[in-house]
Amino acid sequence: MSHARPMLDTHPTPGGAVPVDVLADVLHDLEECAQTCTLCADACLAEDMVAELRRCIRLNLDCAALCRTTAEIVGRQVEPDVTVVRAALEACAAACAACGSECASHADMHQHCQVCAEACQRCEQACRRAIDALGA
Amino acid sequence: MSHARPMLDTHPTPGGAVPVDVLADVLHDLEECAQTCTLCADACLAEDMVAELRRCIRLNLDCAALCRTTAEIVGRQVEPDVTVVRAALEACAAACAACGSECASHADMHQHCQVCAEACQRCEQACRRAIDALGA
Amino acid sequence: MSHARPMLDTHPTPGGAVPVDVLADVLHDLEECAQTCTLCADACLAEDMVAELRRCIRLNLDCAALCRTTAEIVGRQVEPDVTVVRAALEACAAACAACGSECASHADMHQHCQVCAEACQRCEQACRRAIDALGA
Amino acid sequence: MSHARPMLDTHPTPGGAVPVDVLADVLHDLEECAQTCTLCADACLAEDMVAELRRCIRLNLDCAALCRTTAEIVGRQVEPDVTVVRAALEACAAACAACGSECASHADMHQHCQVCAEACQRCEQACRRAIDALGA
Repeated sequence: MSHARPMLDTHPTPGGAVPVDVLADVLHDLEECAQTCTLCADACLAEDMVAELRRCIRLNLDCAALCRTTAEIVGRQVEPDVTVVRAALEACAAACAACGSECASHADMHQHCQVCAEACQRCEQACRRAIDALGA
Repeated sequence: MSHARPMLDTHPTPGGAVPVDVLADVLHDLEECAQTCTLCADACLAEDMVAELRRCIRLNLDCAALCRTTAEIVGRQVEPDVTVVRAALEACAAACAACGSECASHADMHQHCQVCAEACQRCEQACRRAIDALGA
Repeated sequence: MSHARPMLDTHPTPGGAVPVDVLADVLHDLEECAQTCTLCADACLAEDMVAELRRCIRLNLDCAALCRTTAEIVGRQVEPDVTVVRAALEACAAACAACGSECASHADMHQHCQVCAEACQRCEQACRRAIDALGA
Repeated sequence: MSHARPMLDTHPTPGGAVPVDVLADVLHDLEECAQTCTLCADACLAEDMVAELRRCIRLNLDCAALCRTTAEIVGRQVEPDVTVVRAALEACAAACAACGSECASHADMHQHCQVCAEACQRCEQACRRAIDALGA
């Protein structure tokens, strides 16, 4: 039960670039993905074979940072610049795609990468739905 | 249904400063509070009486930033420095206390501040439980 | 005198998406722009006419967040994904363009917006140079 | 030549918790330390002996996040809560101390850790000076 929806419903001038129904979902998926990627970077760092997980750790950190920043930007309702919102969502979707694919490639060896791959794929799809809904 | 718990349960060497049961709760409350404060700053900015909400907006931004950073730090399981984890939780609890109190003071006028005050209070308590559980 | 250059010069396997000479400049401009936008949002919030500066405050916050995240992503040398690096730089350039233009529109009334408009324009150009240098 | 000073000098109601002269220095050191720690984490990840640098990488990430958040909080001039500002500076100083000490312990093997240890020590001292100047 997230606070995003009540916060959006009590905003005095809702007018974000993404309609509220789509927005509540993408905000949830962005926060989940940010947290999952942060924890996956840490879990990969703890693995014996950390030297083979460098690309995964790096993409986890990139994806976590972009998810947090995109959640901030897409969530704000006050006078959004649609070009900026779209570009942030595109960058985030690209990071989710890259990180999700990398995690999926060793999901059979590391269960945390399996969980993270799923979070990235869900978040990438949510970002793409938000992009499709922009200005709709 | 959060990913934090499955990520913590599949970590190869769980060893964070806060026990996993307490940690899953505080991570959830930190993410909720970060998002709520980000949206409350934006909702306050949209109010007609924005000039009277400057302190609220400022504390919302402080609290959101500290919640995100603290979630990162407390979540990592690899070789934590307990002094750093404790100090981050203390700073976050202080921000939640200040922001929650400010939001509560005009919760009757702005429903978003009511929701945000509750999120801050819950997060402050979760931070304090995590501090109590440090090294336990 | 920034630490970015010595850090890049002592990296064991430099291999970022952006050549080191271009990178040191864009890292500097990203950090400056992030800090300037954070302070401009705060200065706008303090103005008597804050109600007319909502769009400026919002874009300042968007731009600051994207500059910080992009600095992280473009700075990392370990196995970058060029698609992600490019998308982050594009999003950041879009935010700098929007924020710089908004700040410039009231630069004659608010000197902090004049300083911020210049920081945004310089950072947008640095991002575009980095994009041009990608994979070069 | 940083923008922090002109931004602070053109703020309509300067009134931060830390006097402007001290503040301009700590903002500079916080931004430098954040960037240096981000790059040191990446350089450590690239080392052959990455498995022995786990604690360093983890503390680098903690310290970078706290430096960025503290720079935001201490920089804002609008109605600061001194308890929050102090707690953020304390947490940041703790992270700088832990990360600086860890980096110093293998500074003879990794030049990036030498540069990072110096940035952390300088930033810890700047945070402590800012704490001493609080409310002064």
